[in-house]
Amino acid sequence: MKYLTAGESHGKAIVGIIDSYPSGVRIDIDFINNELKRRQKGFGRGERMAIEDDRVDIISGIRKEKSTGSPISFLIYNKDWKNWKDKIDKEDNLLNPRPGHADFSGLLKYHLASIRDTIERSSARETAARVCVGSFAKIILKMLGINIFSYVNQIGKVVYKNDVKINLDIVKKTEDSQVRCPDNKKSLEMKQEIIKASENGNSIGGGFKIIATNLVPGIGSYNQGSSRIDAKIAYSIMSIPGIKAVEIGEGFKSAGMKGTDFHDKIYYDDKKGFTRRTNNAGGIEGGMTNGEPIIIGAKMKPIPTTVKGIETVNIKSKKKEISLKERSDVCAVPSASIVGEAMLSIEILNGILEKFGKDNIDEIINNYNSYKEYINKI
Amino acid sequence: MKYLTAGESHGKAIVGIIDSYPSGVRIDIDFINNELKRRQKGFGRGERMAIEDDRVDIISGIRKEKSTGSPISFLIYNKDWKNWKDKIDKEDNLLNPRPGHADFSGLLKYHLASIRDTIERSSARETAARVCVGSFAKIILKMLGINIFSYVNQIGKVVYKNDVKINLDIVKKTEDSQVRCPDNKKSLEMKQEIIKASENGNSIGGGFKIIATNLVPGIGSYNQGSSRIDAKIAYSIMSIPGIKAVEIGEGFKSAGMKGTDFHDKIYYDDKKGFTRRTNNAGGIEGGMTNGEPIIIGAKMKPIPTTVKGIETVNIKSKKKEISLKERSDVCAVPSASIVGEAMLSIEILNGILEKFGKDNIDEIINNYNSYKEYINKI
Amino acid sequence: MKYLTAGESHGKAIVGIIDSYPSGVRIDIDFINNELKRRQKGFGRGERMAIEDDRVDIISGIRKEKSTGSPISFLIYNKDWKNWKDKIDKEDNLLNPRPGHADFSGLLKYHLASIRDTIERSSARETAARVCVGSFAKIILKMLGINIFSYVNQIGKVVYKNDVKINLDIVKKTEDSQVRCPDNKKSLEMKQEIIKASENGNSIGGGFKIIATNLVPGIGSYNQGSSRIDAKIAYSIMSIPGIKAVEIGEGFKSAGMKGTDFHDKIYYDDKKGFTRRTNNAGGIEGGMTNGEPIIIGAKMKPIPTTVKGIETVNIKSKKKEISLKERSDVCAVPSASIVGEAMLSIEILNGILEKFGKDNIDEIINNYNSYKEYINKI
Amino acid sequence: MKYLTAGESHGKAIVGIIDSYPSGVRIDIDFINNELKRRQKGFGRGERMAIEDDRVDIISGIRKEKSTGSPISFLIYNKDWKNWKDKIDKEDNLLNPRPGHADFSGLLKYHLASIRDTIERSSARETAARVCVGSFAKIILKMLGINIFSYVNQIGKVVYKNDVKINLDIVKKTEDSQVRCPDNKKSLEMKQEIIKASENGNSIGGGFKIIATNLVPGIGSYNQGSSRIDAKIAYSIMSIPGIKAVEIGEGFKSAGMKGTDFHDKIYYDDKKGFTRRTNNAGGIEGGMTNGEPIIIGAKMKPIPTTVKGIETVNIKSKKKEISLKERSDVCAVPSASIVGEAMLSIEILNGILEKFGKDNIDEIINNYNSYKEYINKI
Repeated sequence: MKYLTAGESHGKAIVGIIDSYPSGVRIDIDFINNELKRRQKGFGRGERMAIEDDRVDIISGIRKEKSTGSPISFLIYNKDWKNWKDKIDKEDNLLNPRPGHADFSGLLKYHLASIRDTIERSSARETAARVCVGSFAKIILKMLGINIFSYVNQIGKVVYKNDVKINLDIVKKTEDSQVRCPDNKKSLEMKQEIIKASENGNSIGGGFKIIATNLVPGIGSYNQGSSRIDAKIAYSIMSIPGIKAVEIGEGFKSAGMKGTDFHDKIYYDDKKGFTRRTNNAGGIEGGMTNGEPIIIGAKMKPIPTTVKGIETVNIKSKKKEISLKERSDVCAVPSASIVGEAMLSIEILNGILEKFGKDNIDEIINNYNSYKEYINKI
Repeated sequence: MKYLTAGESHGKAIVGIIDSYPSGVRIDIDFINNELKRRQKGFGRGERMAIEDDRVDIISGIRKEKSTGSPISFLIYNKDWKNWKDKIDKEDNLLNPRPGHADFSGLLKYHLASIRDTIERSSARETAARVCVGSFAKIILKMLGINIFSYVNQIGKVVYKNDVKINLDIVKKTEDSQVRCPDNKKSLEMKQEIIKASENGNSIGGGFKIIATNLVPGIGSYNQGSSRIDAKIAYSIMSIPGIKAVEIGEGFKSAGMKGTDFHDKIYYDDKKGFTRRTNNAGGIEGGMTNGEPIIIGAKMKPIPTTVKGIETVNIKSKKKEISLKERSDVCAVPSASIVGEAMLSIEILNGILEKFGKDNIDEIINNYNSYKEYINKI
Repeated sequence: MKYLTAGESHGKAIVGIIDSYPSGVRIDIDFINNELKRRQKGFGRGERMAIEDDRVDIISGIRKEKSTGSPISFLIYNKDWKNWKDKIDKEDNLLNPRPGHADFSGLLKYHLASIRDTIERSSARETAARVCVGSFAKIILKMLGINIFSYVNQIGKVVYKNDVKINLDIVKKTEDSQVRCPDNKKSLEMKQEIIKASENGNSIGGGFKIIATNLVPGIGSYNQGSSRIDAKIAYSIMSIPGIKAVEIGEGFKSAGMKGTDFHDKIYYDDKKGFTRRTNNAGGIEGGMTNGEPIIIGAKMKPIPTTVKGIETVNIKSKKKEISLKERSDVCAVPSASIVGEAMLSIEILNGILEKFGKDNIDEIINNYNSYKEYINKI
Repeated sequence: MKYLTAGESHGKAIVGIIDSYPSGVRIDIDFINNELKRRQKGFGRGERMAIEDDRVDIISGIRKEKSTGSPISFLIYNKDWKNWKDKIDKEDNLLNPRPGHADFSGLLKYHLASIRDTIERSSARETAARVCVGSFAKIILKMLGINIFSYVNQIGKVVYKNDVKINLDIVKKTEDSQVRCPDNKKSLEMKQEIIKASENGNSIGGGFKIIATNLVPGIGSYNQGSSRIDAKIAYSIMSIPGIKAVEIGEGFKSAGMKGTDFHDKIYYDDKKGFTRRTNNAGGIEGGMTNGEPIIIGAKMKPIPTTVKGIETVNIKSKKKEISLKERSDVCAVPSASIVGEAMLSIEILNGILEKFGKDNIDEIINNYNSYKEYINKI
């Protein structure tokens, strides 16, 4: 599954093309639209999210709700487009780059006259397309029994440290929380952090975890650095705008631990087969899945666009200015966790398609089950 | 610059091919061999490093000490090979996988009869080839005035928190330290951590920083998630065996910070041009270099092979066993930091070759300087 | 420049995304629409071409007629879509595959219930998107002084053998000819061939040449088989539906020639610099451009869809049937030559962007001119 | 299966790395060496082939004659190396490029001082590595019942037009023929052509066919131009040094044919299943295999190096000179046909690995057979 995205933040639409999506998959558009909605929600999002109500418009690759094996293309229209078109076309001389954003380097790299063109594409609005691609991936993962879940474990100074065991209750609590934190008390504190930042015309960062359950061992490979699934996941997660740190399992803590304490002892259980009682490795050993849940942690910096503005210079005049005050969110961590789910889904699905083929869902499931049987009989 | 590596830990040699390395570059073999030696050193390495004295044997792509533009191929012979060949060939039934290593999933994925074949390729010995590839990259970066440096900031519980400003003194201290830490006192404490772990038949993790200085802004792109240089660097660093966490700049801290505190204000200085007084972003904004030093942090888990052994099961009999006790290091963090330098060098060079061409070094330097002039005149 | 296309023949639209198109390029939409029109024209096209009037709808990547460096996305709407939607949705049991087309293997590969889904994507209508991508490439090539031209040299039994020297007259004659042949007499004969085939309910093949002029030497490389520009061009041209043979220069004749007769002697001329008096090599030696015009020849099989039908079997019942009679063209060779121009333009541009960078057109032109100066001074 | 090759014609060795070769494949080194020998043979090869006796030296990826799933690396030593090293190192000022070869453009592209470095890498000696990679591919194809065969059908003016049906007798005759032509009489005429060229200090071109039998339908895809197997095969075959034209099936003739004559009618036979009585398509329809034999035709230009020399200019002085007279073959068409077998094998295997997985041979065969069963039951 390869994909490309296109589209500007205030352009007509965000566009995506997915190539090599298996045929025969029943596509539930409501599910995809709900994923888009999950990305839009979250306390701390700006006024724009009240305007936009993202819905996917599929142009190709699906007929009678089933994938045909042909490339899938889609648009997500920007409702707010018309209000911005004229405004943008007048901004041919915007030269006060936001520190922390693409504006400064983008203008130089592409020899632009205004930071506007960089702003438009480097905006996190592009991640709507990734969530859409990810939801196609999720649909297949679900058919293979693989679930993807995320929750927020930090907003500003408020950190939620509990070890989360996924169950229906936890999922419900997380989805109900305006900050995607499964703990009610922490959720409230997190909201307070966002309110405080907002009141100060500031923005705020945070962190989240993404978890994939029920995997087979052996997705990814140790053969080249570039074939390791941990490397691919780090790539995908770090590619989300704002993400500045990624860990697999207990990655940060691992540095301070002894080998016999960190590594997850292997057991065999007649019902579960090979199993572990800890999961410090986060489901990945030697660049491959080991069958345990994949657990990814990510840290997100505060959003560079602030109502207050940040000290910067005019790129041409070199004089001091205050950075552009684009309408923006105060905190986008809950949304980023949904994008994280999408990116993780894409990487896992690609690892699976590489091992089991990618033409037709029945063929993939058949090959997948053959592999599971072989493992059970070993 | 594309490359592939091959070779087993106790095979005849580690092999590498580099395609699309620019012509006209003077190649100093001593420099490359010294890089290989830097990887081998470090307190905590096992007895093997006393046997091996890695030296590159270049087969193609270099004539009269200059690159010709043709693919570079090289071998790094394993001196210890002959002692192992027979031993390995008898190990056709090794079934006690080391938790934390590739053994378990590798055997299943590749339908192997013994974990031995996975052990051989998933071994970190492969990183000798990456250091070699990286040293070719470094040679060009040096010609462009770009320096790459690394130091260890954690071994087990000992953490070195100082903010390091690179200068000749710091570099010398780091290179002289057996654990690659620029602080004498911390170095001694780190050695003690390793000695303790060793005495307990255990292994130990840690962390390191890699820094690249003197970059131009605009390497990498925000156009696709996959074109961001932060994503590519995360990929490369996470692909180093044992690495479980990666941060860019103050990535971990960023989650707890306010926008106006985190983002690096932009200034203009008549001598330095555009400049910053902080570098929380670690030199990367919007998926592109911003001209400030790139700063990467990594955390490494403890080595899975321990003298003590770790509880595991026999993959066929399903009975409890103690994991394989392969000869190994107690701590490889200092070595991993050298591999990290190599991986970062490769990613930065590739970003540069993509922007300025990759055929000939004079052409690249000419195009590179034209871009710098354009920025100076903006 | 990477791109993906999507869209079905009778779907809502054909969609394309182009990534890494340089910034600062003035985009003339009329030029692109005219290229689309050139693809639609040609004697022998079916009635559909009377319905469709392809026009590109650009969604992103262009602002105020200039490329911004951001991904370009576009749609080409199918006017005929609404008339077909219901018809197609009833065809869930179409099982009489057209010999020569994708129907048979496509149904098996993707486990489809009807050949309809394969028909829709494997249709040559997809090439409208490629012509659009190619026209973006052509715009840059034109800025570098590189021209792309094509003409038809065979329709059925009528072969036009003259060696064509490109000049304004020839170009005009070709564009005026309904079969894109620069010779009036041959054009008439070719039309007769098409009329004959049409009257018999049959289809007919042919051949064409594509020529690129004013190139620099050194685009492409001999380093790997996969880096040769002749290989890449063969790939691109053979990927056009219906193409079954590709030659570079006098490729077919070369097999019967002696070395001293075939190879193009090298001369030096004070005005032209290095030059040749023959061009049997078709502008490519050793997998690289040599500065002479690139000349590509292609042969196209007759269209598999015929009014007459062709003997086939029902894939499920295994009984004899006549192949599907989809509305179609009788001869698409003139159109294919336009697609050929697009594909050649894309490959040449990609070779150039690889050597001279791909961020901004001014930077590319600067680097390109530096290389030309270096060659002149050698 | 990805691979890179490296190595100069008169360097120490040709080197190759193959990544993602399935585990569990029994590797017959004698078979590989015999493939290398088949490449070296052929009437018309120069004196060097009497010196070299190519043998593969496998460094990694194979243990106890079985592939382990790890990257395979190999060397093919150049026996003649030592005799050339000093000679080459004195040739720092060779400036008389051979028309038809990479010398001219290579020197310019890579800013070289002498054409020697280009000569060394652009030499067809590199194809020894490709034949080695191809023989690994062939071993798996054979396990799947797929056979690859080639024969020469043209040397200079002598053309062998018969339609060849592969059987043991034909194969034997071809392998016994010094020019790889299955017809004794034509073989003699072809030899005469070579002798004539040789006596005149000239070189000569030719043509060959490559045939793959017993394929399943559905390898390759019509989804993108770049996913079509005909495009990939054209790429691979055109990447062989000297090849200037490629056809699939009756590609050249197709241009002059009517649809109902050209396209291969589909039949169903209780024993053979779906079948055809003609194979003008050469086994590929809609960018996919259709189950019939793949038939590829290629035309090779005469070798650019001739004893006579060809008129050229000195690149620096611009004065007329005679092109370099490097020791060379008079005709390499029989050898090129063996390289063609290798390239076709690689493309077919890659198409298969993409559809059925690539980790382990048992798993691949299992998935492959499941697909065949599904087709049989349709």
